Amino acid sequence: MANIPTNCHPAYTTHVKYRFSQVFLRNCWYIAAWSRDIGRNLVARTMLGDNVVLYRQRDGGVVVLEDACPHRKLPLSMGRLLGDIVECGYHGMQFDCSGACVLAPTQKRIPPNVRVRSYPVAEKWGFVWVWMGESDQADESKIYEIDDFDNPDWGMTEGGTLDIDCHYLWVTDNLLDPSHVAWVHRSSFAAPGTADVPLKIDTSDHGVVVSRWISNQTLPAYYAPLVKFEGNCDRMQHYEVRMPSICINRSIFTPVGTGGDPEQLHEKAYMMVSYNFMTPIDENRTTYYWFQRYNTDPDDAGIAMRLNEGAMMAFNEDREVLEAVHIGMNNKISSSLNLGLDAGSSHYRRMLDKAIAAEQSQ
Amino acid sequence: MANIPTNCHPAYTTHVKYRFSQVFLRNCWYIAAWSRDIGRNLVARTMLGDNVVLYRQRDGGVVVLEDACPHRKLPLSMGRLLGDIVECGYHGMQFDCSGACVLAPTQKRIPPNVRVRSYPVAEKWGFVWVWMGESDQADESKIYEIDDFDNPDWGMTEGGTLDIDCHYLWVTDNLLDPSHVAWVHRSSFAAPGTADVPLKIDTSDHGVVVSRWISNQTLPAYYAPLVKFEGNCDRMQHYEVRMPSICINRSIFTPVGTGGDPEQLHEKAYMMVSYNFMTPIDENRTTYYWFQRYNTDPDDAGIAMRLNEGAMMAFNEDREVLEAVHIGMNNKISSSLNLGLDAGSSHYRRMLDKAIAAEQSQ
Amino acid sequence: MANIPTNCHPAYTTHVKYRFSQVFLRNCWYIAAWSRDIGRNLVARTMLGDNVVLYRQRDGGVVVLEDACPHRKLPLSMGRLLGDIVECGYHGMQFDCSGACVLAPTQKRIPPNVRVRSYPVAEKWGFVWVWMGESDQADESKIYEIDDFDNPDWGMTEGGTLDIDCHYLWVTDNLLDPSHVAWVHRSSFAAPGTADVPLKIDTSDHGVVVSRWISNQTLPAYYAPLVKFEGNCDRMQHYEVRMPSICINRSIFTPVGTGGDPEQLHEKAYMMVSYNFMTPIDENRTTYYWFQRYNTDPDDAGIAMRLNEGAMMAFNEDREVLEAVHIGMNNKISSSLNLGLDAGSSHYRRMLDKAIAAEQSQ
Repeated sequence: MANIPTNCHPAYTTHVKYRFSQVFLRNCWYIAAWSRDIGRNLVARTMLGDNVVLYRQRDGGVVVLEDACPHRKLPLSMGRLLGDIVECGYHGMQFDCSGACVLAPTQKRIPPNVRVRSYPVAEKWGFVWVWMGESDQADESKIYEIDDFDNPDWGMTEGGTLDIDCHYLWVTDNLLDPSHVAWVHRSSFAAPGTADVPLKIDTSDHGVVVSRWISNQTLPAYYAPLVKFEGNCDRMQHYEVRMPSICINRSIFTPVGTGGDPEQLHEKAYMMVSYNFMTPIDENRTTYYWFQRYNTDPDDAGIAMRLNEGAMMAFNEDREVLEAVHIGMNNKISSSLNLGLDAGSSHYRRMLDKAIAAEQSQ
Repeated sequence: MANIPTNCHPAYTTHVKYRFSQVFLRNCWYIAAWSRDIGRNLVARTMLGDNVVLYRQRDGGVVVLEDACPHRKLPLSMGRLLGDIVECGYHGMQFDCSGACVLAPTQKRIPPNVRVRSYPVAEKWGFVWVWMGESDQADESKIYEIDDFDNPDWGMTEGGTLDIDCHYLWVTDNLLDPSHVAWVHRSSFAAPGTADVPLKIDTSDHGVVVSRWISNQTLPAYYAPLVKFEGNCDRMQHYEVRMPSICINRSIFTPVGTGGDPEQLHEKAYMMVSYNFMTPIDENRTTYYWFQRYNTDPDDAGIAMRLNEGAMMAFNEDREVLEAVHIGMNNKISSSLNLGLDAGSSHYRRMLDKAIAAEQSQ
Repeated sequence: MANIPTNCHPAYTTHVKYRFSQVFLRNCWYIAAWSRDIGRNLVARTMLGDNVVLYRQRDGGVVVLEDACPHRKLPLSMGRLLGDIVECGYHGMQFDCSGACVLAPTQKRIPPNVRVRSYPVAEKWGFVWVWMGESDQADESKIYEIDDFDNPDWGMTEGGTLDIDCHYLWVTDNLLDPSHVAWVHRSSFAAPGTADVPLKIDTSDHGVVVSRWISNQTLPAYYAPLVKFEGNCDRMQHYEVRMPSICINRSIFTPVGTGGDPEQLHEKAYMMVSYNFMTPIDENRTTYYWFQRYNTDPDDAGIAMRLNEGAMMAFNEDREVLEAVHIGMNNKISSSLNLGLDAGSSHYRRMLDKAIAAEQSQ
């Protein structure tokens, strides 16, 4: 069950009709913020076109409400947090964590049925997750599961956030595309073989995996200082996307000749997993959250920091390309074409289209 | 009668068809500028979507013309003032104060019937007023009358101007709403009781008055230094709106127990009247002009200055809220609702809608 | 013949359908850049709404390609120049100077028929010219011919470039209008008589000439230091526009009484020719290129520099007016009218409309 505070109004549903954009899958969890960024103040975000306000209650629970007073649509985030109650900055209307109006101080009576939408919310893996669809379908067990998250032998980066001015599927395409690193990340992730070794595509109910083993490659600059063996490597790129827009990129570097089977890893194999979470702001903007875990140096803060800085640098390289792709594809005057490398993302886009259509026909 | 210069072309009407926005009441006076800001140079303004140019003639009269040369629509305000004549900066076409073209120097003959629109204009209460509708209906006696304007016992602020990026009716709503001060102006105009004492609504042919007496209130921070008695007060808020968008806010502070009847004021009662004039720039922007008069300290320039600064500070608090309301109401994805405090402004909006519809059906 | 490199793919045509704006004449040469600004790097420009990338090959020839990789429309100008080949910065697709894809490194096979549009290109008079229409109609002999360009007795300015936020025909109108100098260029090109001496209009298949002789005028400030005689002058303004948007402005200043016949010039007559070339960026923006030639002081770099600076200053005066005209004419709420001075440009606009319509009906 999602973290629905029990000490306030129970009703999540509302009789208010909402006009929603049709381009997003809504019955799923999206990240709204890093948990560490939400405290005892009002924070405004836009997710899937919805303006929301986030705050942490006195008991530590996070609340996510529609960020618009029902009266004149002033963002509640421009008001005040009074205890666990949000007060509008225009006429003092107060809303509890369920979105119910609990005070309309300019008059004797609270108008009936006044509420703002309250979104089911959960915290996991250091993030605040929000269920953007029907509240009664919210199920915390559907949040993406990270195996072995607390393994003390693994290092972890602090992670980062980046707003990118493009449709979120250009980002998921990119994170399902092991090839682009050869050109976009020439000085960090690229190495001989990144370009052209054939890709394997696997699909499931949840999404798509694009992967390949590259044999006898030199180590790319970003990973070289971390790997615990000498000489060339076999390298696995294992890029997974899951609905609605979660991308897990696994990289394995193992001594030459020991690659080929991720279940039987050499003792010196270096593994890194990048967890990437895209939250659409709207159809033209995306908030990108990420962090990385790796099977070495759990206590070396310097390594974690350098990895984090390197990721931010590389993702800014992606940002520059993806924003130009968004503009180019939106304004193209001639047709575009798919390459072989697009097979995985094309499959994923069809899968997502189907899920969105199914959700809307409910 | 409006100040129509008699030493130039008599015709205000023109055969040119204009395309006007349908959302404004046009047959009335709007403020274009402070009189003190119009001199012997060309000043551009936009009012009700019309671009106009203002200047003062040698005899002191103010002229307001359409700010577009009929040839290529270069703003006349980019040209020169030659005596009482405006010269276009592109090809030297000259227009007199009636808008008639009096010289077309690139050719022998002035093309027939060439003119720009000339707007009836008047000066009163320190402002330049412009009649935005049919010129032959312009009547200077219809300018809002301020009783006892020259009373030497009353102080007066210099006044101010603020451009607000919102529809002008969000501003008139706000100035007809005594309640918002409790939240928007917490540190200046608010005091206990501002929030919830019931409002009285009176209507007339000209507009609406929302008012109330608040008994036994502490003095709000903005007024406390001015009042000439000790202890708590009875407070009257008397908020009037008149067509098209003039708001007069009267405040009375009188010793506890002496309030209740504005006609029978205690000798130590403090009165302030805020005069507020909204000129729509277009449907999304408003120029807000104001000044204040008060029944004390007519010769204390320091008090006048501090009051003026306080008003500017408070009106910037309004600006921040009203611009967010304009965006919120324009982009709302769920319905909005009225509160009891909106009864006055709802009545006024209906009255104005009727007047606009009547004007357009003429 | 246009400078089509023979060492690469021969095909200029393509099966890709392009969506082009209908407002430009396409089967003609437009300037894309100064030759001196194109070297061994990728330069992005927008012409007639098309995004193009320019570069110079190792043999010195200039290549102009569509600036969008066919895969995801990333501008090729964000990629790299490898020898004479352009590499896309996303997945390394490579295109030769004909626009043909010659490498798709993420896969074994180049997808068939993949190409970007290649534009016929030529260099002349210090400019890179691009044929924006059907490649097979490109003919270098159609580039505007400048007589006696290399005459060593004539001085020449370095020339300049200015982006103007207006439709290109407001610029050609302006350059076909000898009258505006009296108001727009009051301190440089204007002199008594500039305003009202009648204009002569001549038309040809290529365009329109507006001209006049002004008798016994004082010398305008811009030209006075250059002229080699004392006293007043006769002045010729000879303004020519040629399709699509080339304007040649000839000025002659000759001792009083010796003017009237440009074929029989006085030995002390001063002549200046301004060559002006407009390339539409799109319907709302224009790139303006120009240089000047004059029959004196071929070796005086100081004079050339001062003339160039004066031209830039004057053309910025035009820019300010033309951008306001563009806005004024696009948003006019009342009708506009033509003056006598518009006869030439009106004729030219009709001629151009006819040519565009003829081209589109092909």
